[in-house]
Amino acid sequence: MNAPNETHAPDLRAWIDSANAPDTDFPVQNLPFGVFRRPGDRARIGVAIGDQILDVAVARGARMLEGSGAEACEAETLNGLMALGPEAWTELRAQMSALLREDGGGRSAAVVREGDLLVAQRDVELLLPARVGDYTDFYASLDHATHVGSMFRPDNPLLPNYKWIPIGYHGRASSVVVSGTPVRRPSGQRKPPEAEAPVFGPSRMLDYELEVGAWIGAGNALGETIPVADADRHIFGLSLLNDWSARDVQAWEYQPLGPFLGKSFATTVSPWIVTWEALAPFLVEVPARAPGDPAPLPYLDAGSTARHAVALTLDVWLQSAAMRSRGLAPLHVSRGSLAGMYWTFPQMVAHHASNGCNLRPGDLLGSGTVSGPEPEARGCLLERTWRGRDLLALPGGEQRAFLEDGDEVTLTGRCAREGYRAIGFGGCGGRVG
Amino acid sequence: MNAPNETHAPDLRAWIDSANAPDTDFPVQNLPFGVFRRPGDRARIGVAIGDQILDVAVARGARMLEGSGAEACEAETLNGLMALGPEAWTELRAQMSALLREDGGGRSAAVVREGDLLVAQRDVELLLPARVGDYTDFYASLDHATHVGSMFRPDNPLLPNYKWIPIGYHGRASSVVVSGTPVRRPSGQRKPPEAEAPVFGPSRMLDYELEVGAWIGAGNALGETIPVADADRHIFGLSLLNDWSARDVQAWEYQPLGPFLGKSFATTVSPWIVTWEALAPFLVEVPARAPGDPAPLPYLDAGSTARHAVALTLDVWLQSAAMRSRGLAPLHVSRGSLAGMYWTFPQMVAHHASNGCNLRPGDLLGSGTVSGPEPEARGCLLERTWRGRDLLALPGGEQRAFLEDGDEVTLTGRCAREGYRAIGFGGCGGRVG
Repeated sequence: MNAPNETHAPDLRAWIDSANAPDTDFPVQNLPFGVFRRPGDRARIGVAIGDQILDVAVARGARMLEGSGAEACEAETLNGLMALGPEAWTELRAQMSALLREDGGGRSAAVVREGDLLVAQRDVELLLPARVGDYTDFYASLDHATHVGSMFRPDNPLLPNYKWIPIGYHGRASSVVVSGTPVRRPSGQRKPPEAEAPVFGPSRMLDYELEVGAWIGAGNALGETIPVADADRHIFGLSLLNDWSARDVQAWEYQPLGPFLGKSFATTVSPWIVTWEALAPFLVEVPARAPGDPAPLPYLDAGSTARHAVALTLDVWLQSAAMRSRGLAPLHVSRGSLAGMYWTFPQMVAHHASNGCNLRPGDLLGSGTVSGPEPEARGCLLERTWRGRDLLALPGGEQRAFLEDGDEVTLTGRCAREGYRAIGFGGCGGRVG
Repeated sequence: MNAPNETHAPDLRAWIDSANAPDTDFPVQNLPFGVFRRPGDRARIGVAIGDQILDVAVARGARMLEGSGAEACEAETLNGLMALGPEAWTELRAQMSALLREDGGGRSAAVVREGDLLVAQRDVELLLPARVGDYTDFYASLDHATHVGSMFRPDNPLLPNYKWIPIGYHGRASSVVVSGTPVRRPSGQRKPPEAEAPVFGPSRMLDYELEVGAWIGAGNALGETIPVADADRHIFGLSLLNDWSARDVQAWEYQPLGPFLGKSFATTVSPWIVTWEALAPFLVEVPARAPGDPAPLPYLDAGSTARHAVALTLDVWLQSAAMRSRGLAPLHVSRGSLAGMYWTFPQMVAHHASNGCNLRPGDLLGSGTVSGPEPEARGCLLERTWRGRDLLALPGGEQRAFLEDGDEVTLTGRCAREGYRAIGFGGCGGRVG
């Protein structure tokens, strides 16, 4: 599956002008799914196209779309569509592509519908696209694990299991929120090294983490596993994900059972899910492991030719309250690439199910912080400022070790490749306060 | 709330004979909630009474029960009833108590209903009582933490945060199953200390953990907290819980982010939720902390007179396939008490929400393994056999370090106190294989 096909052809243009702009994240080659609500209306499933949203149920009602995938889009979340599996997704994508292409018949039909087929993104509220049954967060960047490990455990930065196991932990599903939701600074216990006893109060080391989230499509029954070669067929698509972290709370609480309240106050995802199929042109082979690194165990080894890595470039932007009030644009803080991760999403899926744990449609798997070796590629302030040692200079003269109230963090992501139309993820933002 | 009231009076008798047997877990003073299904029927909410189940929706249809609590019992899970909060639960309990008491009018009304008001427990399937939004597992027994810590970290058994923080971690919600569900032995990576590299295969150190689960009733909004003095009002009730654990998988994977696949293959809960209100006679003050231990921080301190500990005696039973085939009764493996835990459920609730993390109706909080200092009070085989050093002798001549295929583990629990009718939890069982 997932070789590029006609829906990815670079010369396709939509009959919606904004979808043909060179810098749009949502050309007709993308077609990401989300859930939106018009004022006073119910939640509805939509597909982003330029600066508009295609209302899928309206298109189906007008007999422009048919089949089980379109039917599942009558719901208020994507879980039903996710459960159907890749054949249904492909069938629906092909129909939507034909409907929205300049050479298709959609435009004239849309006129007949008097405009309710499309709605401007700025006129609606975007909602969490699926009910998250379980949220799991991985730790798949070797650079991130090494950087953070060297701060928390200087004598032992990278633990012996790292290159064998896609390390992950269960996260909190209830506090997964959609982009734009305000993030309240959490209180918690923290214990500075020199203090006798911990104190309870607002976190002083609030951080973001640049991540990508994979949404599970069809799941597996309890007790069954998912072979790694088949694991990409269980991934519906990807969103951007900000794993907000209170570093002081995390440092004091995390042993021996892992992160808990230092993470569970909020996790922000972008509203649009870029499907695994839309990513086909940007799926690449996994980089060879460094000399001396162990080969993946067979249950994690999809072979060297499996195109399971994603050539997705990710950026972090930060704007303080003072910058906003002075009209200063957000600062570009870092840039990373998902393609350089040590573990792929299909490996994470196969590992997750390797003990018979059942994954369900709408489950969310975080990649872990996407970091590279260079300072400009470090995906959280903990790494970017090296725990506050190298303060970040903001336009206007402010400095940051960690996030202050009023700070707004926005993640963006884009896939580009010679010979293909670039696609993007839209923004994943949240303001502290 | 939750002082004993008329529904707890020890002289109350039900008009269902089996509820008056001295050894029943389900006298009219208990009235635990569950979800059951008659063959071919939908899931329905019921209340255990002796060896029978009261079909709550049928009772409501016959105008024997009224109000928002009874209305919420028209559903197929308890989440709706849980969301209503303690006043609605109390109102419903009082009506059910009156309906089922020997001196009430329920018996004659039941005759009119031709028996569909009650169904024998043996004639139905018992289901998971609620949709578990998130499952969190704590670590509230000081003895368990000390025992396990001394095996995994001999130089550092009890970490410095333990007496300050109710340590917990996010568990896996999808694999929470009801008593009776078979438990498949998980495969996973394990690395014996002497081995060069890990191997992948079936766990050789499969274990149970004797725990109690608290079901959240009304939740809190994201960003809001729950004061510890108010936290018991957010607890709908308790079930028994077996946190199945693959010790070899856990030992290799758990650093630095905590337990993951060593736990997520299955967690078994008992089908009946004994309400916090039914437990009122058995709620006791928290034992004083040992000299030298820190006082709880204010956000965890409900005062020395808060009756937040539960005098619940817990037992573990083990029966192998060979024992079953030879007609040998299950072996009593250990006995523990929930009253001796270092942290109470209200403290766990307050801590969980202290960073603004939203709890939702139906969320499940595990206590952590309930262990005491004596060998006979250790609530898992890891402790009971001290990692296999002291083999457990089974009737018939077998020995156990960890669980073998065919082994069936059953947890039971009972509250008894002079001057009150004893109540129990029913069994929480699962067979490996």
